[in-house]
Amino acid sequence: VSEIEFISEPTVKTLAVSRPVEDAGFTDIDLLPVNAARVSASGFSTDYSSRDAGLERRLIADLHGTPFEHAVMTFFIEVPLFVNAQWHTHRWSSFNQESARYSEMKPRFYLPKEDDWRLQPEKRMDYKYDPACESLGSKARSILKAFCEEQWEAYKLLLSNGIAREQARMVLPENLMTRFWWTVNLRSLANFLSLRTDEHAQKEIRDAAFLIEEEVKKYFPEFHKAWVESGRKAIGA
Amino acid sequence: VSEIEFISEPTVKTLAVSRPVEDAGFTDIDLLPVNAARVSASGFSTDYSSRDAGLERRLIADLHGTPFEHAVMTFFIEVPLFVNAQWHTHRWSSFNQESARYSEMKPRFYLPKEDDWRLQPEKRMDYKYDPACESLGSKARSILKAFCEEQWEAYKLLLSNGIAREQARMVLPENLMTRFWWTVNLRSLANFLSLRTDEHAQKEIRDAAFLIEEEVKKYFPEFHKAWVESGRKAIGA
Amino acid sequence: VSEIEFISEPTVKTLAVSRPVEDAGFTDIDLLPVNAARVSASGFSTDYSSRDAGLERRLIADLHGTPFEHAVMTFFIEVPLFVNAQWHTHRWSSFNQESARYSEMKPRFYLPKEDDWRLQPEKRMDYKYDPACESLGSKARSILKAFCEEQWEAYKLLLSNGIAREQARMVLPENLMTRFWWTVNLRSLANFLSLRTDEHAQKEIRDAAFLIEEEVKKYFPEFHKAWVESGRKAIGA
Amino acid sequence: VSEIEFISEPTVKTLAVSRPVEDAGFTDIDLLPVNAARVSASGFSTDYSSRDAGLERRLIADLHGTPFEHAVMTFFIEVPLFVNAQWHTHRWSSFNQESARYSEMKPRFYLPKEDDWRLQPEKRMDYKYDPACESLGSKARSILKAFCEEQWEAYKLLLSNGIAREQARMVLPENLMTRFWWTVNLRSLANFLSLRTDEHAQKEIRDAAFLIEEEVKKYFPEFHKAWVESGRKAIGA
Repeated sequence: VSEIEFISEPTVKTLAVSRPVEDAGFTDIDLLPVNAARVSASGFSTDYSSRDAGLERRLIADLHGTPFEHAVMTFFIEVPLFVNAQWHTHRWSSFNQESARYSEMKPRFYLPKEDDWRLQPEKRMDYKYDPACESLGSKARSILKAFCEEQWEAYKLLLSNGIAREQARMVLPENLMTRFWWTVNLRSLANFLSLRTDEHAQKEIRDAAFLIEEEVKKYFPEFHKAWVESGRKAIGA
Repeated sequence: VSEIEFISEPTVKTLAVSRPVEDAGFTDIDLLPVNAARVSASGFSTDYSSRDAGLERRLIADLHGTPFEHAVMTFFIEVPLFVNAQWHTHRWSSFNQESARYSEMKPRFYLPKEDDWRLQPEKRMDYKYDPACESLGSKARSILKAFCEEQWEAYKLLLSNGIAREQARMVLPENLMTRFWWTVNLRSLANFLSLRTDEHAQKEIRDAAFLIEEEVKKYFPEFHKAWVESGRKAIGA
Repeated sequence: VSEIEFISEPTVKTLAVSRPVEDAGFTDIDLLPVNAARVSASGFSTDYSSRDAGLERRLIADLHGTPFEHAVMTFFIEVPLFVNAQWHTHRWSSFNQESARYSEMKPRFYLPKEDDWRLQPEKRMDYKYDPACESLGSKARSILKAFCEEQWEAYKLLLSNGIAREQARMVLPENLMTRFWWTVNLRSLANFLSLRTDEHAQKEIRDAAFLIEEEVKKYFPEFHKAWVESGRKAIGA
Repeated sequence: VSEIEFISEPTVKTLAVSRPVEDAGFTDIDLLPVNAARVSASGFSTDYSSRDAGLERRLIADLHGTPFEHAVMTFFIEVPLFVNAQWHTHRWSSFNQESARYSEMKPRFYLPKEDDWRLQPEKRMDYKYDPACESLGSKARSILKAFCEEQWEAYKLLLSNGIAREQARMVLPENLMTRFWWTVNLRSLANFLSLRTDEHAQKEIRDAAFLIEEEVKKYFPEFHKAWVESGRKAIGA
């Protein structure tokens, strides 16, 4: 079916970040956590210095997480449904997802590349996956592509018969791409990145998590550096 | 395929509730909210009286929600994936869902009864759905059943080729049944029931929400009566 | 004691707000909720129009609260300790408060003006307070001022004897001023303002809540207008 | 003033815990986390075995925190106001505190024993406190006792002049005892105990945290053993 699009990569785009207002007394958003930790208006830093770097590392090491809640990012994200479902377990953050109840879905499906398929390990909770050989990857792609085409036929058929979108969507599979806004502070981001860039995380959410990390690094380079140096861990619970 | 099961109803089962310990000074769990509101150990009620009923109604009317957070229920729930996804938007509660990463899924699919299909309304955000006629319902069931069989073939084929469960599950559709534990306090339950038993909610989650309401009524009859009389609303935000 | 300052008003100052980044496709922060509700990047508004105003009112009326979580404000606030304690019951938000453990406190005390004192109503949970006459107000001020001076003596005496700050602060009274950062999204703000600008709220937190409302109105005028027109209520729970 | 009571210890009392209902299929509350982790009703343990112990340790080590959210405890707690304020920073839990707005407070004050006073360390964020000598402790007690008597005079004087309780409470000091209900799951408890029984925590909240730990150990002995063996850490963030 020519209209179907197959996609092998997540999309992550920063939409908004916390910005000091004009008369806040400082402009660098990387100062938000350390100035929050100092609280008192008189003690603000106006330029991120080595003193700020020291305080930021100390806060992370001591698991003082609340100062990192005052710096917030909003992302536009597109991932398959099964990755989105894992994302929702990070409850201390905000989501708006496109609705399969109100909108007709687009035929955009996640399809791993030939060398991105993995073999089932023998032990139930083992996280070590060997890669599938390319011929198996190629075969798996064919099976998945054919399935998506059948799935799309079934969805269109139910809709063309007048069935409500909220019921027709029952045939949508877990590799359908979904789009959502995600708003989250640096403390929750540290937790998310710690868990989801870890080698135990499923590759499909790891790929997205590394893109998130790139954005964190771009907008909060000092925070990112301190967090990496501190061992990429959650900052308090 | 003979092994496939089609299911038309959600399952809801209470697993645990908050229980006063032996020397708490009261045994009726319906007293948890009103005794919490009184706080002071000396002011406990030991038998739910009309004075307690008056206080409970007053708390609900004034949107004093915190006393209702001290009474907690744990449920075992089985619903289709698309209903589970809506459930996860209720963040102030706790979830444990069976994992399609660690376990092989069972072929249990949600299939609406013939008279349970609905037509797409013309206006985008209109919640009024006319029922599909039975012949359309019958046709829709056939389409969905055939799709589930194909889906199940694809899943088994990927697994039998050695593909990891965490990737094979990409072909699982939104009407696959999923099981989870849900722990939630009476305040969050009031919010959940208010939104999800409402006529604007999708019928498939409404069916499950009414089963939840039956359990709330069974274990906390005085709370349920007060909440219904107060207009079935959320108790503060 | 000459160093003591008496303060009759809370302080509220906006420090930061969510800002779309350069290539977000829109700049007006009032568009954050409605663009979040639309999710899809293709459907963004770039100028707040009457269509956006209609959607915003519809979201509020239908209690669709999640789109309002993508617009976030950070405040610097100074209020007495007893007002700060009420503030902390709004758990879906972030706090950093100055520490009486690590810092020596300043002698800044909240002292109501002569015409700002209220009489105890006879009924326990009645919210209707008659104002005290000015001569009583004047007397109450004298009592409170004298108490603060004694309190401050006791604090300084403990410190000068070498007692740790974390213990000396036991003599700090509930009218000592405290400073904190508060980061909160528009959904939680709607809830906070609904409860804390209400006539049942204690005047001292109401005064601060109205200052918060001024800031919301300044930075998110379209949201504020829609929320006021919709009856100043919480947007979902 | 003879009516004043001085108290040197916090009070902690368990009021309620999660209990499986009659037909849940298991009765031991220590099975709640491991049965939640297994989700599927068919896989329930009915007696806590070494297999359950292994799973529980594995969940803690891998920071899989959600299964521990299905076991909930409710406590009655009495501590000074400054300890209560620290407690409220643990936002993922539920509080009902006695109100100084609606009730007249009782003259119950926290007064450290003679050998429970500490000296201010020289470095600002140093957590190492040397004990005060007994003669200083004795002097500090005298200062604090005299202050409490003056504070209580001021409170009674404002009340006897007809000033509203919500304003008279401005003279209540941070060592006034306050009572609250606290409902919290085992995951949040692990986080609380990890931070608050740590040697960096202030002694007054540590004392209370150790009493909480005794209750956790009494009702969930298997969980407590596993958590202690795993290093007393937070279980995920």
